[in-house]
Amino acid sequence: MEFRFSSNVERLQSSAVRDILKLTQGKEIISFAGGLPAEELFPLEAVRDAAERVFKSGNNTLQYGLTEGYLPLREQLCGRMAKKNMHVEPHEMIMTTGSQQAIDLITRVLMEPGDVVLVENPTYLASLQVFNLSGLRIVPVASDNDGMIISEAERLIKQLQPKLIYVVPTFGNPTARVWSEERRRGLLDLSHRYGIAILEDDPYGDIKFDETEDYPTLFALEDKADGGNVLYTSTFSKTVAPALRTGWAMGSSSVISMMAKAKQAADLHSSTLDQQTLDQLLRHYDLDAHIGTIRGAYGDRMQQMQRLLKAQGWSDVKWEQPKGGMFLWLELPEGLDAAALLRSAVTKNVAFVPGAAFYAAEPQRNTARLNFTFTTGERMATGIARFAEALNEFLARC
Amino acid sequence: MEFRFSSNVERLQSSAVRDILKLTQGKEIISFAGGLPAEELFPLEAVRDAAERVFKSGNNTLQYGLTEGYLPLREQLCGRMAKKNMHVEPHEMIMTTGSQQAIDLITRVLMEPGDVVLVENPTYLASLQVFNLSGLRIVPVASDNDGMIISEAERLIKQLQPKLIYVVPTFGNPTARVWSEERRRGLLDLSHRYGIAILEDDPYGDIKFDETEDYPTLFALEDKADGGNVLYTSTFSKTVAPALRTGWAMGSSSVISMMAKAKQAADLHSSTLDQQTLDQLLRHYDLDAHIGTIRGAYGDRMQQMQRLLKAQGWSDVKWEQPKGGMFLWLELPEGLDAAALLRSAVTKNVAFVPGAAFYAAEPQRNTARLNFTFTTGERMATGIARFAEALNEFLARC
Repeated sequence: MEFRFSSNVERLQSSAVRDILKLTQGKEIISFAGGLPAEELFPLEAVRDAAERVFKSGNNTLQYGLTEGYLPLREQLCGRMAKKNMHVEPHEMIMTTGSQQAIDLITRVLMEPGDVVLVENPTYLASLQVFNLSGLRIVPVASDNDGMIISEAERLIKQLQPKLIYVVPTFGNPTARVWSEERRRGLLDLSHRYGIAILEDDPYGDIKFDETEDYPTLFALEDKADGGNVLYTSTFSKTVAPALRTGWAMGSSSVISMMAKAKQAADLHSSTLDQQTLDQLLRHYDLDAHIGTIRGAYGDRMQQMQRLLKAQGWSDVKWEQPKGGMFLWLELPEGLDAAALLRSAVTKNVAFVPGAAFYAAEPQRNTARLNFTFTTGERMATGIARFAEALNEFLARC
Repeated sequence: MEFRFSSNVERLQSSAVRDILKLTQGKEIISFAGGLPAEELFPLEAVRDAAERVFKSGNNTLQYGLTEGYLPLREQLCGRMAKKNMHVEPHEMIMTTGSQQAIDLITRVLMEPGDVVLVENPTYLASLQVFNLSGLRIVPVASDNDGMIISEAERLIKQLQPKLIYVVPTFGNPTARVWSEERRRGLLDLSHRYGIAILEDDPYGDIKFDETEDYPTLFALEDKADGGNVLYTSTFSKTVAPALRTGWAMGSSSVISMMAKAKQAADLHSSTLDQQTLDQLLRHYDLDAHIGTIRGAYGDRMQQMQRLLKAQGWSDVKWEQPKGGMFLWLELPEGLDAAALLRSAVTKNVAFVPGAAFYAAEPQRNTARLNFTFTTGERMATGIARFAEALNEFLARC
């Protein structure tokens, strides 16, 4: 039979990033497209030791678990969160299949089709997909290097009565921007004055290149899980490894328990083998030292990519130096369509993500996201040389 | 702030099964409530060996994976399915976080709020939750020991134009019923005549007590993935272990690729550590021999529970002897409310699931689901004695 699909899923575009990933798998292409962490830094031996400890603990380790997640892991996570001035109890936290699932579950429990969500401009592509899948009206708020412009957010709040504001305040994807503390406090203030929930997505907060810098989360600034407005999500995907697909959400216990009900329907619970392995990892491995290693390596790679790009001497290719995260966000010359550039780049065996995909409306087409964490050394140099060749051909035509 | 929740999630009841599980964790209660497999039969050493092989294959084992799931595992699964006369290619299959997620994703891609889904009466509780979460209109079809009554299904199809029919034809939960082949073919015929998708949920099909019996799946009877009407889902939760949370769906490639788009938004992909471990397990472990062991043990336990119940000599407590699966479905004396019985039973430290939760409408309240796979030997005898004590008190009052 010919299947009819729901209108929301019909509207859903496949992620450009993942489609390119598919295209480039097993080929000679050097890809700056994926948001892939550095494989050679994965703490494989530590994960293996942790899993070995889990297996030693006996057969019930393979039984069904709680929807809310493995309690000892949540308890340890609460301790880690407290060190960042985020005070939360295990019942105010739920484990999810990556932070991606946290975004989906929060959306499913809070939002009706047609409800308005405010987002940064540009913002994380896969969150736009979640909002589209739930039939939301996505409204971008003008943003600059310090974050959302608060007066613009307030204007849209008055006009559209949004029910949720979605932000990635620290090293956002794709821009790697860091919100100023003033903007963070400004958004919190709006949230309280107008009674609007904030979804703070923080997958990259730990990946800061200057360890002495401190970027307080919105959740820390509000400092109130129960009764607070901020729902926070993060993940082990960037600090340990993506394969374990373990993220978490925290916030008001009323929201967390509704998320647990929705998660019962969505998948009963996430892998408990992965959760127990992470629990053992946190007990027997110095994850903070490992995060320090990642920070150093990613900072170096970011510098290398910057040097390679600067060496091209382009006057009208601009970017802000990232203070953390995994991406360089390029502004290409006015009028250049990065999607066309990608098609040409792929013929030269190099890939990146055209920036248009990250805009909820009116994309700025002369933008590109380059990942600097996955491809290193000589291979990064070769990749940037190919990218430069493609771009130079475009520039020569203008 | 006070959060307002979406109307669908407000309507969602927490699963009675899981709420009881929570209540009974770490206590002296003997629980026949959970749908828990026998822990002592989990192939822990084999899973551990398989995981060890995965870790040996190198760091990229911990990287992000494909949304559709780990390809070598899908390839092996296609081979296993072919042995059951289900012919399917890897692109017609998607790996999910348990079959629960397959049910959710299929619902999200096919159904709009208000769309009608036909279900057996009674049927699997957590699927009712999925349909409620998507705001569907759930309509039960009169069913007997041979499955849905086809003339009733046709009458409702004509009246309500359902978009989906959800069935568990082999050892359904809670009843353990097996549909006759005539009913299976009858439903397929309706599906083709009226152009309605069938979601065939088959978590228990492998757990048959008589190995020589053959119950062809609807998917096998239709024998047509692309262009076919049957979407099939199953899981490793009952044959290997639930903690690995690995299920799959298969069917028309148009539906599978839509499910992949929805899954990108829902969680990007399921644990690849679990999927790779299962792939290695299938290569180096005789899973079919293990399934044989489970069948034998579960058959014995079912017989033990039957004997214990029969020994009570109740004339008006009835059940059909299950041919497979994990549950005994009791019909208690007319007028008895099993929910009240449960409250009394819990004070005697024994638990089960009152049957009402499994009905989409007009519950038959004098029904109860007892799991016979988790609690064995003396402990099962003690549990049934406690259950009998509670029930006898009720019967004495009537």
